[in-house]
Amino acid sequence: MNELNEYLQEVSENLDPILHELVETGVASRLTDAVKWSLFAGGKRFRPALVCASGDAFGADRTRLLRTSAAFEMIHTYSLIHDDLPAMDDDDLRRGRATCHVKFDEATAILAGDVLQSLAFTAIADDESLELQTRISIIKELSAAATKMVEGQQLDLDSEGAISDIESLQQIHHHKTGAMIVAAVKCGALIGGANEEEVATMTKYGDSIGLLFQITDDLLDVTGTTEQLGKTAGKDAVAEKITYPALLGLDGSKAEAQRVHAMALESLASLNRKTRVLSLLADFIMKRSS
Amino acid sequence: MNELNEYLQEVSENLDPILHELVETGVASRLTDAVKWSLFAGGKRFRPALVCASGDAFGADRTRLLRTSAAFEMIHTYSLIHDDLPAMDDDDLRRGRATCHVKFDEATAILAGDVLQSLAFTAIADDESLELQTRISIIKELSAAATKMVEGQQLDLDSEGAISDIESLQQIHHHKTGAMIVAAVKCGALIGGANEEEVATMTKYGDSIGLLFQITDDLLDVTGTTEQLGKTAGKDAVAEKITYPALLGLDGSKAEAQRVHAMALESLASLNRKTRVLSLLADFIMKRSS
Repeated sequence: MNELNEYLQEVSENLDPILHELVETGVASRLTDAVKWSLFAGGKRFRPALVCASGDAFGADRTRLLRTSAAFEMIHTYSLIHDDLPAMDDDDLRRGRATCHVKFDEATAILAGDVLQSLAFTAIADDESLELQTRISIIKELSAAATKMVEGQQLDLDSEGAISDIESLQQIHHHKTGAMIVAAVKCGALIGGANEEEVATMTKYGDSIGLLFQITDDLLDVTGTTEQLGKTAGKDAVAEKITYPALLGLDGSKAEAQRVHAMALESLASLNRKTRVLSLLADFIMKRSS
Repeated sequence: MNELNEYLQEVSENLDPILHELVETGVASRLTDAVKWSLFAGGKRFRPALVCASGDAFGADRTRLLRTSAAFEMIHTYSLIHDDLPAMDDDDLRRGRATCHVKFDEATAILAGDVLQSLAFTAIADDESLELQTRISIIKELSAAATKMVEGQQLDLDSEGAISDIESLQQIHHHKTGAMIVAAVKCGALIGGANEEEVATMTKYGDSIGLLFQITDDLLDVTGTTEQLGKTAGKDAVAEKITYPALLGLDGSKAEAQRVHAMALESLASLNRKTRVLSLLADFIMKRSS
């Protein structure tokens, strides 16, 4: 895992100054504090890493990837802040520390999420390193993924306690987490100038790792501890949420994860590109323990 | 007021089919229901009217103004849904009927606001009637205004109960309501192909009516009834918010409104354009009773 850790650290080091710059508006300091509390909470920068690794595969300059990476992280962070709210998943702990509404207050947490969303779109619209068409394509991808993410959260909330099937479960996850992951991969490829066929292959890869992400997330909620996760474990069972382990059992879920992981690597193999980090990212999701 | 009412009705009739189309995603029907509940609640479509009237002044085709108009209404509606939440202004009544979280639930209301924001940016990015540069300019304006709006809401929440001065009050209002009004006016002008000087003059007009809007809003909270307003009256005094009447008195506030109204009309007079509806909109804000 050393090679991937180095990559993730390099992305973080490139990204964090940009993120600081993008959220420093100088007005409403309590809001900025709340945004920073959640944005610089030791997250893995997984979506930015996807944007960058995907861009790398197609030879994009790192500088052209950073604002888009930042925008994905901002939208992701807004969704975490809102998902943790008392009216939603009601979580006190995130990445091992107090959630935004616990550290600040509910109103500030709602507004911090709201402003992260608008700032994300400003970040892309203002990115002079990208052609106008690329900026518009990325805004289309990111805004559509953000919409799907919210739809997925609503479907998830609506489904609690209901028995359901694997197709319903996949629909929820495809919206809730998959869409943003696929969009991150696609946007990196777009910035790298990938052709239509290559973008389609990268979309397949993104679909696979998005699904893998959710299966392992469900598995971790059953097998992990709160300490390992940095968030409350065992919440899914308490909420009677439909999950992969609940539907397929532990072994069945692990087999499904392996199948989906293999699909991700197959997509990469079909590209004649430097996809080493992308395959390490798929391995990382497969093996992650937190 | 007949001429303006006709204009507002025409804008609504043009706008509503577009809004229906933009929010009809086919997934998470409860979310769509909540979005529609707040989006089609008999609002005046004031920001869309500003986009259209400003575009009209510079000869823009109506069809090129509608998606931008819709995007402004979507961002405005998201802000109303979130502002009404229990953790924020805790309001049960909006435009004479139950607020989104009362009709649905808090989680759905949070998500409805969130998705309206992402859908607004999709609406502009997808607008094939506008050149790429215009789309990017509008996304910059709208996202920056949405950020300012949230900052203003945070400043407003932070200031409750504190004694303050007219400059602090204006800073809050400039952010909270002014920024979106100015941006609506500017975007209409941009779509109409206004030159730099004309955009600057329109910005002045926007600043004036934005300020006027807040003064009359504060006045209405004192002088209006809940029935007239369609929302709870007298809330500002209860919350000990700083307002124009609290700082300048009723007569002083009315005089200030007249001064700012005159400034708006002066800006329009300096343009050699068809600004009739824009001046009627300024009159409307000056005279509005709800």
